[in-house]
Amino acid sequence: MRIDIITCQPELLASPFAHSIVKRAQDKGLAEIYVHDLRQHAINKHGQIDDYVFGGGAGMVLRVEPIAAWLDELLAQRAYDAVIYLTPDGETLRQPLANRLSLLTNVILLCGHYKGIDERLRAAYITHEISVGDYVLSGGELGAAVLVDAVVRLLPGVLGNEESALSDSFQDDLLAPPVYTRPAEWRGQAVPAILLSGNTPLIEEWRHAQALARTQARRPDLLNGFEEK
Amino acid sequence: MRIDIITCQPELLASPFAHSIVKRAQDKGLAEIYVHDLRQHAINKHGQIDDYVFGGGAGMVLRVEPIAAWLDELLAQRAYDAVIYLTPDGETLRQPLANRLSLLTNVILLCGHYKGIDERLRAAYITHEISVGDYVLSGGELGAAVLVDAVVRLLPGVLGNEESALSDSFQDDLLAPPVYTRPAEWRGQAVPAILLSGNTPLIEEWRHAQALARTQARRPDLLNGFEEK
Repeated sequence: MRIDIITCQPELLASPFAHSIVKRAQDKGLAEIYVHDLRQHAINKHGQIDDYVFGGGAGMVLRVEPIAAWLDELLAQRAYDAVIYLTPDGETLRQPLANRLSLLTNVILLCGHYKGIDERLRAAYITHEISVGDYVLSGGELGAAVLVDAVVRLLPGVLGNEESALSDSFQDDLLAPPVYTRPAEWRGQAVPAILLSGNTPLIEEWRHAQALARTQARRPDLLNGFEEK
Repeated sequence: MRIDIITCQPELLASPFAHSIVKRAQDKGLAEIYVHDLRQHAINKHGQIDDYVFGGGAGMVLRVEPIAAWLDELLAQRAYDAVIYLTPDGETLRQPLANRLSLLTNVILLCGHYKGIDERLRAAYITHEISVGDYVLSGGELGAAVLVDAVVRLLPGVLGNEESALSDSFQDDLLAPPVYTRPAEWRGQAVPAILLSGNTPLIEEWRHAQALARTQARRPDLLNGFEEK
Protein backbone atom coordinates (compact mmCIF):
# COMPACT_ATOMS: atom_id res chain seq x y z
CA MET A 1 0.00 0.00 0.00
CA ARG A 2 1.28 3.44 -0.93
CA ILE A 3 0.12 6.46 1.09
CA ASP A 4 0.91 10.03 0.04
CA ILE A 5 0.19 12.69 2.63
CA ILE A 6 -0.07 16.37 1.74
CA THR A 7 0.37 18.67 4.73
CA CYS A 8 1.62 22.07 5.82
CA GLN A 9 3.11 20.44 8.94
CA PRO A 10 5.28 17.60 7.64
CA GLU A 11 7.51 17.67 10.74
CA LEU A 12 4.53 16.93 12.97
CA LEU A 13 4.21 13.51 11.33
CA ALA A 14 7.86 12.50 11.68
CA SER A 15 7.78 10.50 14.91
CA PRO A 16 4.42 8.69 14.53
CA PHE A 17 5.60 7.15 11.25
CA ALA A 18 9.08 6.32 12.56
CA HIS A 19 7.97 4.00 15.36
CA SER A 20 5.85 1.04 16.27
CA ILE A 21 3.65 -0.80 13.79
CA VAL A 22 3.82 1.81 11.05
CA LYS A 23 7.60 1.69 11.05
CA ARG A 24 7.53 -2.09 10.96
CA ALA A 25 5.15 -2.07 8.00
CA GLN A 26 7.51 0.19 6.09
CA ASP A 27 10.58 -1.83 7.06
CA LYS A 28 8.87 -4.96 5.75
CA GLY A 29 8.01 -3.21 2.48
CA LEU A 30 4.28 -3.59 3.10
CA ALA A 31 3.57 0.13 3.28
CA GLU A 32 5.21 3.14 1.65
CA ILE A 33 4.43 6.48 3.25
CA TYR A 34 5.44 9.78 1.66
CA VAL A 35 4.88 13.09 3.40
CA HIS A 36 4.70 16.09 1.06
CA ASP A 37 5.21 19.64 2.27
CA LEU A 38 2.58 22.05 1.02
CA ARG A 39 5.10 24.89 1.22
CA GLN A 40 7.07 23.36 -1.67
CA HIS A 41 4.25 24.71 -3.83
CA ALA A 42 3.79 28.01 -2.00
CA ILE A 43 2.36 30.84 -4.08
CA ASN A 44 5.31 33.15 -3.43
CA LYS A 45 8.83 33.18 -2.08
CA HIS A 46 7.54 33.97 1.42
CA GLY A 47 6.13 30.45 1.57
CA GLN A 48 2.51 31.59 1.55
CA ILE A 49 -0.04 28.77 1.34
CA ASP A 50 -3.06 30.27 3.09
CA ASP A 51 -5.13 33.43 2.99
CA TYR A 52 -7.96 35.26 4.73
CA VAL A 53 -11.42 33.79 4.59
CA PHE A 54 -13.79 35.42 2.08
CA GLY A 55 -16.69 37.09 3.82
CA GLY A 56 -14.69 37.92 6.93
CA GLY A 57 -14.17 36.17 10.25
CA ALA A 58 -11.39 34.54 12.22
CA GLY A 59 -9.03 31.89 10.92
CA MET A 60 -7.12 31.30 7.72
CA VAL A 61 -7.99 29.03 4.77
CA LEU A 62 -5.57 26.91 2.75
CA ARG A 63 -5.43 28.28 -0.81
CA VAL A 64 -6.21 26.19 -3.87
CA GLU A 65 -2.94 26.53 -5.79
CA PRO A 66 -0.43 24.73 -3.51
CA ILE A 67 -2.79 21.82 -2.94
CA ALA A 68 -3.82 21.58 -6.59
CA ALA A 69 -0.15 21.59 -7.62
CA TRP A 70 0.65 18.62 -5.37
CA LEU A 71 -2.46 16.71 -6.39
CA ASP A 72 -1.84 17.30 -10.09
CA GLU A 73 1.74 16.12 -9.69
CA LEU A 74 0.82 12.93 -7.84
CA LEU A 75 -2.21 12.09 -9.99
CA ALA A 76 -0.06 12.37 -13.12
CA GLN A 77 2.37 9.79 -11.73
CA ARG A 78 0.04 6.91 -10.91
CA ALA A 79 -3.60 5.92 -10.45
CA TYR A 80 -4.98 6.54 -6.98
CA ASP A 81 -7.89 4.63 -5.49
CA ALA A 82 -8.82 7.45 -3.17
CA VAL A 83 -8.05 11.11 -2.53
CA ILE A 84 -9.08 11.52 1.08
CA TYR A 85 -9.58 14.82 2.86
CA LEU A 86 -9.39 14.65 6.66
CA THR A 87 -12.14 16.94 7.94
CA PRO A 88 -14.48 17.06 10.94
CA ASP A 89 -17.51 17.07 8.61
CA GLY A 90 -16.46 13.91 6.79
CA GLU A 91 -17.66 10.35 7.27
CA THR A 92 -16.71 9.14 10.74
CA LEU A 93 -13.86 6.65 10.70
CA ARG A 94 -14.97 3.37 12.23
CA GLN A 95 -13.44 -0.07 12.03
CA PRO A 96 -15.38 -1.28 8.94
CA LEU A 97 -14.19 1.79 6.99
CA ALA A 98 -10.61 1.16 8.13
CA ASN A 99 -11.00 -2.44 6.95
CA ARG A 100 -12.19 -1.28 3.52
CA LEU A 101 -9.41 1.28 3.17
CA SER A 102 -6.82 -1.41 3.93
CA LEU A 103 -7.73 -3.08 0.63
CA LEU A 104 -6.67 -0.06 -1.46
CA THR A 105 -3.35 0.23 -3.26
CA ASN A 106 -2.58 3.94 -3.69
CA VAL A 107 -4.12 6.56 -1.45
CA ILE A 108 -3.65 10.31 -0.99
CA LEU A 109 -4.42 11.91 2.35
CA LEU A 110 -4.91 15.67 2.37
CA CYS A 111 -4.61 17.37 5.75
CA GLY A 112 -6.54 20.54 6.38
CA HIS A 113 -5.23 23.20 8.74
CA TYR A 114 -6.52 26.45 10.18
CA LYS A 115 -10.15 26.80 9.03
CA GLY A 116 -9.71 24.12 6.34
CA ILE A 117 -9.20 24.08 2.59
CA ASP A 118 -10.91 26.20 -0.05
CA GLU A 119 -14.23 24.51 -0.79
CA ARG A 120 -13.57 24.40 -4.54
CA LEU A 121 -10.83 21.82 -4.00
CA ARG A 122 -13.30 19.44 -2.44
CA ALA A 123 -15.47 19.35 -5.55
CA ALA A 124 -12.48 19.16 -7.89
CA TYR A 125 -10.37 16.41 -6.36
CA ILE A 126 -11.64 14.75 -3.21
CA THR A 127 -13.16 11.27 -3.45
CA HIS A 128 -13.59 10.59 0.31
CA GLU A 129 -13.98 12.91 3.27
CA ILE A 130 -13.17 11.29 6.59
CA SER A 131 -13.31 12.44 10.20
CA VAL A 132 -11.57 10.51 12.98
CA GLY A 133 -14.11 11.72 15.54
CA ASP A 134 -16.58 14.38 16.61
CA TYR A 135 -14.00 16.82 17.90
CA VAL A 136 -11.89 19.55 16.38
CA LEU A 137 -8.13 19.21 16.02
CA SER A 138 -5.59 21.85 15.04
CA GLY A 139 -5.18 20.22 11.67
CA GLY A 140 -5.67 17.02 9.72
CA GLU A 141 -2.21 15.73 10.59
CA LEU A 142 -3.18 13.75 13.68
CA GLY A 143 -6.24 12.51 11.82
CA ALA A 144 -3.94 11.25 9.06
CA ALA A 145 -1.65 9.61 11.62
CA VAL A 146 -4.64 7.87 13.21
CA LEU A 147 -5.99 6.71 9.85
CA VAL A 148 -2.59 5.41 8.72
CA ASP A 149 -2.10 3.48 11.96
CA ALA A 150 -5.62 2.02 11.92
CA VAL A 151 -5.27 0.91 8.29
CA VAL A 152 -1.63 -0.15 8.06
CA ARG A 153 -1.89 -2.54 11.00
CA LEU A 154 -4.53 -4.46 9.04
CA LEU A 155 -2.27 -5.14 6.06
CA PRO A 156 -1.44 -8.85 5.91
CA GLY A 157 1.96 -9.54 7.45
CA VAL A 158 2.27 -6.33 9.43
CA LEU A 159 1.26 -7.65 12.82
CA GLY A 160 3.44 -10.42 14.19
CA ASN A 161 0.46 -12.65 14.70
CA GLU A 162 -2.46 -12.48 12.28
CA GLU A 163 -4.86 -13.52 14.96
CA SER A 164 -4.12 -10.47 17.05
CA ALA A 165 -5.99 -7.90 14.93
CA LEU A 166 -9.04 -10.15 14.56
CA SER A 167 -9.51 -10.41 18.32
CA ASP A 168 -9.38 -6.60 18.77
CA SER A 169 -12.34 -4.55 19.87
CA PHE A 170 -14.87 -3.76 17.11
CA GLN A 171 -13.89 -6.50 14.66
CA ASP A 172 -16.89 -8.55 15.71
CA ASP A 173 -19.08 -5.65 16.90
CA LEU A 174 -17.99 -6.40 20.45
CA LEU A 175 -15.61 -4.67 22.81
CA ALA A 176 -12.67 -6.79 23.85
CA PRO A 177 -12.88 -8.79 27.10
CA PRO A 178 -10.63 -7.88 30.04
CA VAL A 179 -7.04 -9.12 29.89
CA TYR A 180 -4.68 -10.14 32.65
CA THR A 181 -1.05 -11.09 32.85
CA ARG A 182 1.46 -12.10 35.49
CA PRO A 183 1.69 -11.84 38.45
CA ALA A 184 -1.41 -13.93 39.21
CA GLU A 185 -1.87 -12.00 42.44
CA TRP A 186 -1.11 -8.30 42.88
CA ARG A 187 -1.90 -6.26 45.97
CA GLY A 188 -4.43 -8.86 47.02
CA GLN A 189 -6.21 -8.94 43.68
CA ALA A 190 -6.17 -12.32 41.97
CA VAL A 191 -6.65 -13.03 38.30
CA PRO A 192 -10.00 -14.77 37.58
CA ALA A 193 -9.37 -18.44 38.34
CA ILE A 194 -10.78 -19.66 35.05
CA LEU A 195 -7.92 -18.00 33.15
CA LEU A 196 -5.45 -20.22 35.01
CA SER A 197 -7.49 -23.38 34.43
CA GLY A 198 -5.95 -24.34 31.10
CA ASN A 199 -9.44 -25.22 29.85
CA THR A 200 -9.40 -23.37 26.55
CA PRO A 201 -13.05 -23.93 25.51
CA LEU A 202 -14.28 -22.69 28.90
CA ILE A 203 -11.89 -19.73 28.75
CA GLU A 204 -13.19 -18.76 25.31
CA GLU A 205 -16.74 -19.02 26.59
CA TRP A 206 -15.88 -16.80 29.57
CA ARG A 207 -14.21 -14.27 27.29
CA HIS A 208 -17.18 -14.09 24.98
CA ALA A 209 -19.54 -13.60 27.92
CA GLN A 210 -17.29 -10.85 29.31
CA ALA A 211 -17.06 -9.13 25.94
CA LEU A 212 -20.83 -9.27 25.54
CA ALA A 213 -21.47 -7.98 29.05
CA ARG A 214 -19.00 -5.14 28.62
CA THR A 215 -20.51 -4.17 25.29
CA GLN A 216 -24.03 -4.25 26.73
CA ALA A 217 -22.93 -2.06 29.63
CA ARG A 218 -20.80 0.44 27.72
CA ARG A 219 -21.79 0.40 24.09
CA PRO A 220 -25.14 -1.29 23.53
CA ASP A 221 -25.29 0.53 20.16
CA LEU A 222 -22.57 -1.78 18.82
CA LEU A 223 -24.75 -4.85 19.29
CA ASN A 224 -26.98 -3.75 16.42
CA GLY A 225 -24.01 -3.95 14.09
CA PHE A 226 -21.84 -1.22 12.70
CA GLU A 227 -23.16 -1.02 9.19
CA GLU A 228 -26.77 -0.49 10.08
CA LYS A 229 -26.09 2.72 11.99
CA MET B 1 -2.90 22.72 32.61
CA ARG B 2 -0.43 19.95 33.38
CA ILE B 3 -0.58 16.71 31.43
CA ASP B 4 1.50 13.65 32.36
CA ILE B 5 1.57 10.87 29.80
CA ILE B 6 2.70 7.35 30.63
CA THR B 7 3.68 5.32 27.60
CA CYS B 8 5.97 2.56 26.37
CA GLN B 9 6.55 4.57 23.17
CA PRO B 10 7.67 8.03 24.34
CA GLU B 11 9.54 8.68 21.08
CA LEU B 12 6.34 8.31 19.09
CA LEU B 13 4.97 11.41 20.80
CA ALA B 14 7.97 13.64 20.18
CA SER B 15 6.95 15.44 17.00
CA PRO B 16 3.21 15.97 17.66
CA PHE B 17 4.01 17.88 20.86
CA ALA B 18 6.87 19.85 19.32
CA HIS B 19 4.81 21.59 16.63
CA SER B 20 1.71 23.58 15.93
CA ILE B 21 -0.80 24.58 18.59
CA VAL B 22 0.47 22.22 21.27
CA LYS B 23 3.97 23.68 20.98
CA ARG B 24 2.57 27.18 21.13
CA ALA B 25 0.57 26.37 24.27
CA GLN B 26 3.72 25.10 25.96
CA ASP B 27 5.80 28.07 24.80
CA LYS B 28 3.20 30.41 26.28
CA GLY B 29 3.27 28.51 29.58
CA LEU B 30 -0.40 27.54 29.23
CA ALA B 31 0.24 23.80 29.06
CA GLU B 32 2.95 21.59 30.52
CA ILE B 33 3.29 18.17 28.95
CA TYR B 34 5.50 15.46 30.41
CA VAL B 35 6.02 12.14 28.67
CA HIS B 36 7.09 9.31 30.98
CA ASP B 37 8.73 6.15 29.69
CA LEU B 38 7.22 2.98 31.09
CA ARG B 39 10.54 1.23 30.66
CA GLN B 40 12.06 3.36 33.41
CA HIS B 41 10.08 1.13 35.76
CA ALA B 42 10.66 -2.12 33.90
CA ILE B 43 10.49 -5.26 36.06
CA ASN B 44 14.00 -6.38 35.14
CA LYS B 45 17.20 -5.23 33.53
CA HIS B 46 16.00 -6.43 30.13
CA GLY B 47 13.42 -3.64 30.14
CA GLN B 48 10.46 -5.99 30.41
CA ILE B 49 7.11 -4.24 30.86
CA ASP B 50 4.68 -6.74 29.33
CA ASP B 51 3.88 -10.42 29.53
CA TYR B 52 1.76 -13.15 27.96
CA VAL B 53 -1.99 -12.99 28.40
CA PHE B 54 -3.42 -15.33 31.02
CA GLY B 55 -5.67 -17.93 29.47
CA GLY B 56 -3.73 -18.04 26.21
CA GLY B 57 -4.11 -16.26 22.92
CA ALA B 58 -2.23 -13.76 20.76
CA GLY B 59 -0.88 -10.44 21.93
CA MET B 60 0.93 -9.17 25.00
CA VAL B 61 -0.46 -7.34 28.02
CA LEU B 62 1.21 -4.48 29.90
CA ARG B 63 2.07 -5.65 33.41
CA VAL B 64 0.83 -3.94 36.54
CA GLU B 65 4.14 -3.09 38.22
CA PRO B 66 5.69 -0.54 35.81
CA ILE B 67 2.42 1.35 35.43
CA ALA B 68 1.64 1.26 39.15
CA ALA B 69 5.14 2.55 39.91
CA TRP B 70 4.68 5.58 37.64
CA LEU B 71 1.18 6.29 38.92
CA ASP B 72 2.23 6.00 42.56
CA GLU B 73 5.13 8.36 41.90
CA LEU B 74 3.01 11.01 40.19
CA LEU B 75 0.05 10.76 42.54
CA ALA B 76 2.38 11.29 45.50
CA GLN B 77 3.63 14.54 43.97
CA ARG B 78 0.39 16.41 43.37
CA ALA B 79 -3.38 16.05 43.20
CA TYR B 80 -4.71 14.94 39.83
CA ASP B 81 -8.22 15.69 38.59
CA ALA B 82 -8.26 12.68 36.30
CA VAL B 83 -6.30 9.51 35.56
CA ILE B 84 -7.38 8.72 32.03
CA TYR B 85 -6.82 5.42 30.25
CA LEU B 86 -6.98 5.61 26.45
CA THR B 87 -8.83 2.49 25.35
CA PRO B 88 -11.21 1.51 22.54
CA ASP B 89 -13.85 0.46 25.06
CA GLY B 90 -13.84 3.83 26.85
CA GLU B 91 -16.26 6.73 26.53
CA THR B 92 -16.06 8.13 23.01
CA LEU B 93 -14.27 11.48 22.85
CA ARG B 94 -16.59 14.14 21.47
CA GLN B 95 -16.35 17.90 21.60
CA PRO B 96 -18.36 18.37 24.83
CA LEU B 97 -16.03 15.96 26.65
CA ALA B 98 -12.99 17.80 25.26
CA ASN B 99 -14.53 21.05 26.52
CA ARG B 100 -14.99 19.60 30.00
CA LEU B 101 -11.46 18.17 30.12
CA SER B 102 -10.03 21.58 29.20
CA LEU B 103 -11.24 22.87 32.59
CA LEU B 104 -9.03 20.45 34.55
CA THR B 105 -5.69 21.37 36.11
CA ASN B 106 -3.64 18.16 36.41
CA VAL B 107 -4.32 15.15 34.26
CA ILE B 108 -2.59 11.80 33.73
CA LEU B 109 -2.98 9.98 30.42
CA LEU B 110 -2.13 6.29 30.37
CA CYS B 111 -1.50 4.76 26.96
CA GLY B 112 -2.22 1.11 26.43
CA HIS B 113 -0.26 -0.94 23.95
CA TYR B 114 -0.42 -4.45 22.56
CA LYS B 115 -3.60 -6.04 23.98
CA GLY B 116 -3.90 -3.36 26.66
CA ILE B 117 -3.17 -3.10 30.36
CA ASP B 118 -3.83 -5.65 33.08
CA GLU B 119 -7.46 -5.22 34.09
CA ARG B 120 -6.61 -4.85 37.79
CA LEU B 121 -4.99 -1.48 37.08
CA ARG B 122 -8.26 -0.12 35.75
CA ALA B 123 -10.07 -0.77 39.00
CA ALA B 124 -7.18 0.46 41.13
CA TYR B 125 -6.31 3.79 39.48
CA ILE B 126 -8.31 4.86 36.46
CA THR B 127 -10.95 7.58 36.85
CA HIS B 128 -11.87 8.02 33.15
CA GLU B 129 -11.63 5.66 30.18
CA ILE B 130 -11.69 7.43 26.85
CA SER B 131 -11.68 6.26 23.23
CA VAL B 132 -10.94 8.65 20.38
CA GLY B 133 -13.07 6.59 17.99
CA ASP B 134 -14.52 3.22 17.06
CA TYR B 135 -11.35 1.81 15.55
CA VAL B 136 -8.31 0.03 16.89
CA LEU B 137 -4.89 1.68 16.97
CA SER B 138 -1.53 0.10 17.72
CA GLY B 139 -1.47 1.85 21.08
CA GLY B 140 -2.91 4.66 23.09
CA GLU B 141 -0.19 7.09 22.01
CA LEU B 142 -2.03 8.55 19.01
CA GLY B 143 -5.18 8.67 21.10
CA ALA B 144 -3.27 10.68 23.70
CA ALA B 145 -1.91 13.00 21.00
CA VAL B 146 -5.43 13.56 19.67
CA LEU B 147 -6.84 14.20 23.13
CA VAL B 148 -4.04 16.63 24.01
CA ASP B 149 -4.52 18.57 20.78
CA ALA B 150 -8.31 18.71 21.10
CA VAL B 151 -8.10 19.89 24.70
CA VAL B 152 -5.07 22.18 24.68
CA ARG B 153 -6.37 24.30 21.81
CA LEU B 154 -9.37 25.18 23.97
CA LEU B 155 -7.28 26.66 26.79
CA PRO B 156 -7.79 30.42 26.94
CA GLY B 157 -4.98 32.25 25.18
CA VAL B 158 -3.71 29.32 23.12
CA LEU B 159 -5.37 30.16 19.83
CA GLY B 160 -4.43 33.51 18.34
CA ASN B 161 -8.04 34.53 18.09
CA GLU B 162 -10.53 33.36 20.70
CA GLU B 163 -13.31 33.45 18.19
CA SER B 164 -11.68 30.84 16.04
CA ALA B 165 -12.38 27.80 18.26
CA LEU B 166 -15.97 28.84 18.88
CA SER B 167 -16.78 28.85 15.17
CA ASP B 168 -15.38 25.36 14.65
CA SER B 169 -17.49 22.36 13.75
CA PHE B 170 -19.36 20.76 16.69
CA GLN B 171 -19.23 23.72 19.10
CA ASP B 172 -22.85 24.58 18.29
CA ASP B 173 -23.96 21.08 17.24
CA LEU B 174 -23.47 22.10 13.60
CA LEU B 175 -20.80 21.27 11.06
CA ALA B 176 -18.87 24.28 9.82
CA PRO B 177 -20.02 26.02 6.62
CA PRO B 178 -17.81 25.91 3.50
CA VAL B 179 -14.90 28.35 3.42
CA TYR B 180 -13.24 30.10 0.49
CA THR B 181 -10.21 32.27 0.03
CA ARG B 182 -8.43 34.07 -2.80
CA PRO B 183 -8.33 33.88 -5.75
CA ALA B 184 -12.02 34.71 -6.24
CA GLU B 185 -11.99 32.70 -9.46
CA TRP B 186 -10.02 29.50 -9.97
CA ARG B 187 -10.26 27.27 -13.04
CA GLY B 188 -13.60 28.79 -13.89
CA GLN B 189 -15.05 28.27 -10.42
CA ALA B 190 -16.09 31.48 -8.67
CA VAL B 191 -16.51 32.03 -4.97
CA PRO B 192 -20.21 32.49 -3.99
CA ALA B 193 -20.97 36.14 -4.75
CA ILE B 194 -22.45 36.82 -1.34
CA LEU B 195 -19.08 36.30 0.32
CA LEU B 196 -17.70 39.23 -1.68
CA SER B 197 -20.67 41.48 -0.91
CA GLY B 198 -19.32 42.96 2.29
CA ASN B 199 -22.80 42.57 3.81
CA THR B 200 -21.85 40.90 7.08
CA PRO B 201 -25.38 40.15 8.39
CA LEU B 202 -26.33 38.50 5.10
CA ILE B 203 -23.06 36.58 5.03
CA GLU B 204 -23.67 35.28 8.54
CA GLU B 205 -27.18 34.24 7.54
CA TRP B 206 -25.81 32.43 4.48
CA ARG B 207 -23.19 30.67 6.59
CA HIS B 208 -25.74 29.50 9.12
CA ALA B 209 -27.99 28.17 6.36
CA GLN B 210 -25.02 26.36 4.77
CA ALA B 211 -23.96 24.88 8.11
CA LEU B 212 -27.49 23.71 8.78
CA ALA B 213 -27.90 22.21 5.29
CA ARG B 214 -24.56 20.44 5.52
CA THR B 215 -25.38 19.06 8.96
CA GLN B 216 -28.80 17.87 7.78
CA ALA B 217 -27.22 16.15 4.78
CA ARG B 218 -24.21 14.61 6.48
CA ARG B 219 -24.88 14.35 10.18
CA PRO B 220 -28.56 14.76 11.00
CA ASP B 221 -27.82 13.06 14.34
CA LEU B 222 -26.00 16.19 15.52
CA LEU B 223 -29.14 18.30 15.25
CA ASN B 224 -30.62 16.51 18.25
CA GLY B 225 -27.77 17.74 20.38
CA PHE B 226 -24.66 16.00 21.57
CA GLU B 227 -25.55 15.42 25.15
CA GLU B 228 -28.81 13.63 24.55
CA LYS B 229 -27.24 10.85 22.55
